[in-house]
Amino acid sequence: MAARAVILLSGGLDSATVLAMAAKDGFECFALSFRYGQRHEMELRCARRIAAAAKVQQHIEVPIDLRTLGGSALTSNLPVPKDRSTDEMASGIPITYVPARNTIFLAFALAWAEVLASRDIFIGVNALDYSGYPDCRPEFIVAFATLANLATRAGVQGEGRIQIHAPLMNLRKSEIIRLGLAMGINYADTISCYDPAPDGKSCGRCDACTLRLAAFATCRTADPIAYVDNAAATHR
Amino acid sequence: MAARAVILLSGGLDSATVLAMAAKDGFECFALSFRYGQRHEMELRCARRIAAAAKVQQHIEVPIDLRTLGGSALTSNLPVPKDRSTDEMASGIPITYVPARNTIFLAFALAWAEVLASRDIFIGVNALDYSGYPDCRPEFIVAFATLANLATRAGVQGEGRIQIHAPLMNLRKSEIIRLGLAMGINYADTISCYDPAPDGKSCGRCDACTLRLAAFATCRTADPIAYVDNAAATHR
Repeated sequence: MAARAVILLSGGLDSATVLAMAAKDGFECFALSFRYGQRHEMELRCARRIAAAAKVQQHIEVPIDLRTLGGSALTSNLPVPKDRSTDEMASGIPITYVPARNTIFLAFALAWAEVLASRDIFIGVNALDYSGYPDCRPEFIVAFATLANLATRAGVQGEGRIQIHAPLMNLRKSEIIRLGLAMGINYADTISCYDPAPDGKSCGRCDACTLRLAAFATCRTADPIAYVDNAAATHR
Repeated sequence: MAARAVILLSGGLDSATVLAMAAKDGFECFALSFRYGQRHEMELRCARRIAAAAKVQQHIEVPIDLRTLGGSALTSNLPVPKDRSTDEMASGIPITYVPARNTIFLAFALAWAEVLASRDIFIGVNALDYSGYPDCRPEFIVAFATLANLATRAGVQGEGRIQIHAPLMNLRKSEIIRLGLAMGINYADTISCYDPAPDGKSCGRCDACTLRLAAFATCRTADPIAYVDNAAATHR
């Protein structure tokens, strides 16, 4: 029987790639998404398509309400920054940072892993193109793995160590895309935009769109998703 | 201005005591409770009364649904064990253990602390009478503090270390009660039972009731809450 893995699946390009990697490694995949007061449901629709395409064993969506806590442009009505250079992105933590988000997501993944008797959790964090989020750094992942093995039955009863896999940690976005394309991922099923239009088209101007478009350009591949201004997006 | 603290408040005896300790230490208190698919709403009603009595600055209830993850008698329909001796309780992790629960609760507390610019989180875990839960041990709390300082703006930008206060860690339940009584806590506002009756009375027979009743007996003080069989409860 294949070992089980829990994969955090956001609907974005990174987690779609991580899911394909876990499946390729032979894991039986359990995908976990969150409804967390997003401005848009588009991410979850993408997550469902990605999970279906990857034929995961199970995909669950856990409702959590980060709006009660406040504090981020992604969960409140603060404006999302647009048209920033990568230098501007690299200077400090942006207001799109959701406080302790990856800690919360990994905590739920850990709970589900324990229920499933899984010892492997996959997360698509990335330290290179990470836009300044503190909870995307390698030392954060190492600290969470230490915690995970103290927090659970597995840790206490010595049933095998829990591992937090972050296989994209040291890859450039363009390398992630090349890897995914080689595994046959259809990136049309993904979305990266922080501020999509009501029709689901990506804005092409937020930090996430800027990084994504630059990475596809580096790969000399067209990004298969729709942008509000497709012509401008492809000529950046 | 007083420093702010986030206090995890369950409605139980331990967290009520911790809240009083934080207030006594001069913190401006922000209480955090969860609706997590409990069998009963009684806990939350107690949490509200405790928060009001302690005059906290703010009390929020975050809805999270641990039922989607399955795996515990406290969130599913498995029977709660009754009439166990403390020796039986000490042997292994009981089925009332909720997978990774304290990891999830502390992750939300961390998120709120970050929004509030608080550096202090209080949790009422206890290693002595802890009924075998892995996430109530001192090494778990230390690991979470390490994580917290890597996961957040404060950690990255050097704005002061986040501390996880677990002041009950090395106290016996009877010592906790004595401490609370000395601070004027009205324990009638609290509940410990894993399986209260529909009218809100405690069962008197689950692990939590057994530990609570034994502790009040040690203190030679009557437990002010109502039990299904009050006479039996006071003569155990």
